[in-house]
Amino acid sequence: MLLSGGLDSATVLAMGRAQGFAMHALSLDYGQRHSAELQAARRVAAALGAVAHEIVHLDLSRFGGSALTDPAIAVPEIGVQTGIPSTYVPARNTVMLSVALSWAEALGAQHLFYGANAVDYSGYPDCRPAYVEAFERLANLATKAGVEGRAMHVHAPIIALRKAEIIRTGHDLGVDYAMTVSCYQADDQGRACGRCDACRIRAQGFADAGLPDPTRYRSAGTA
Amino acid sequence: MLLSGGLDSATVLAMGRAQGFAMHALSLDYGQRHSAELQAARRVAAALGAVAHEIVHLDLSRFGGSALTDPAIAVPEIGVQTGIPSTYVPARNTVMLSVALSWAEALGAQHLFYGANAVDYSGYPDCRPAYVEAFERLANLATKAGVEGRAMHVHAPIIALRKAEIIRTGHDLGVDYAMTVSCYQADDQGRACGRCDACRIRAQGFADAGLPDPTRYRSAGTA
Repeated sequence: MLLSGGLDSATVLAMGRAQGFAMHALSLDYGQRHSAELQAARRVAAALGAVAHEIVHLDLSRFGGSALTDPAIAVPEIGVQTGIPSTYVPARNTVMLSVALSWAEALGAQHLFYGANAVDYSGYPDCRPAYVEAFERLANLATKAGVEGRAMHVHAPIIALRKAEIIRTGHDLGVDYAMTVSCYQADDQGRACGRCDACRIRAQGFADAGLPDPTRYRSAGTA
Repeated sequence: MLLSGGLDSATVLAMGRAQGFAMHALSLDYGQRHSAELQAARRVAAALGAVAHEIVHLDLSRFGGSALTDPAIAVPEIGVQTGIPSTYVPARNTVMLSVALSWAEALGAQHLFYGANAVDYSGYPDCRPAYVEAFERLANLATKAGVEGRAMHVHAPIIALRKAEIIRTGHDLGVDYAMTVSCYQADDQGRACGRCDACRIRAQGFADAGLPDPTRYRSAGTA
């Protein structure tokens, strides 16, 4: 599974484990702005019982083209807009799924879990069901496993859920969201800005779910 | 384009350039057994006029599962067999194409070149036309470019050529194959073993093309 350190993939880890899968978590150090995300991924993998966690280094920031990897492009703070956001990293999820596919095939695993969500943030092209289906099709053509009849499956169990539903699902499975970091520009301690799109959607999700928001914000800190 | 340092991708670089494309070459340092391959890629990129060459590090050898990355699995020397060879690296080409897609999108490029060949070495699942079509479909669903109508194209210009035809094509375009390394277990100077599948297919290709084979072999050296 792909594990980012955010709320969505933490939920997917808990869901996969609840279904009885031995979850192997993959995180990508792709040159993102902050390291709090990867620290959160480590905490989540340990706390939610991943049987293995690999952090693979692959520097996509050298290519540029995203607010998440290029300091010259500002992270938007004006509220969620329509269209594909500047925080889209060119083909990042395709790269991550491909690396996960490599690991899965080497392990003899036939299931990939992907925490894409098409509802509250439909601006990302690689979070749509048609993309997930296309990747699953590719995975079966690409691999020895697929060719030899051990079909690869790509699970995207939260793709059609609202953020509040994701949060309630994880809450019921015992996920402590205090250890996750969603903010696009979290500080070194993982404290959130409260202004970027990821922060806005997350905060609304807790409000809609009727659950307390455990997110640590910079401005609300005790300095 | 993906550039391995071998004969096929060198030919594809020359073909793309002859068509007027400004070729950007991508090589992956994935933990392969020998560095001669990447040294050859550098020589080829420079000699054939790539406008840029990036070598991306991503260690797939940690996952194992291939004779090319796991010293415990021997490179076959008994002649080309049917089925998927042990030199298949799980999903490696999918990872490389995905990284190339990321770079292409950041560049604003709409064309990927991929030196897959389905004829002389049909054992690799990710060298078949159906795979190339599936990747192109994915690329258009995965990217901002694809969603916004700037279609991505995956070119596999040698996929249906015999090795001898590839060699004649490159020869006519002025490719010096002496700088390419095809051997799965070349030594530090890029000298070939002459016994692995890649060596056998390459030698047969030059013979069938009626052209002198410039490959440097270990055993034929002047020690």
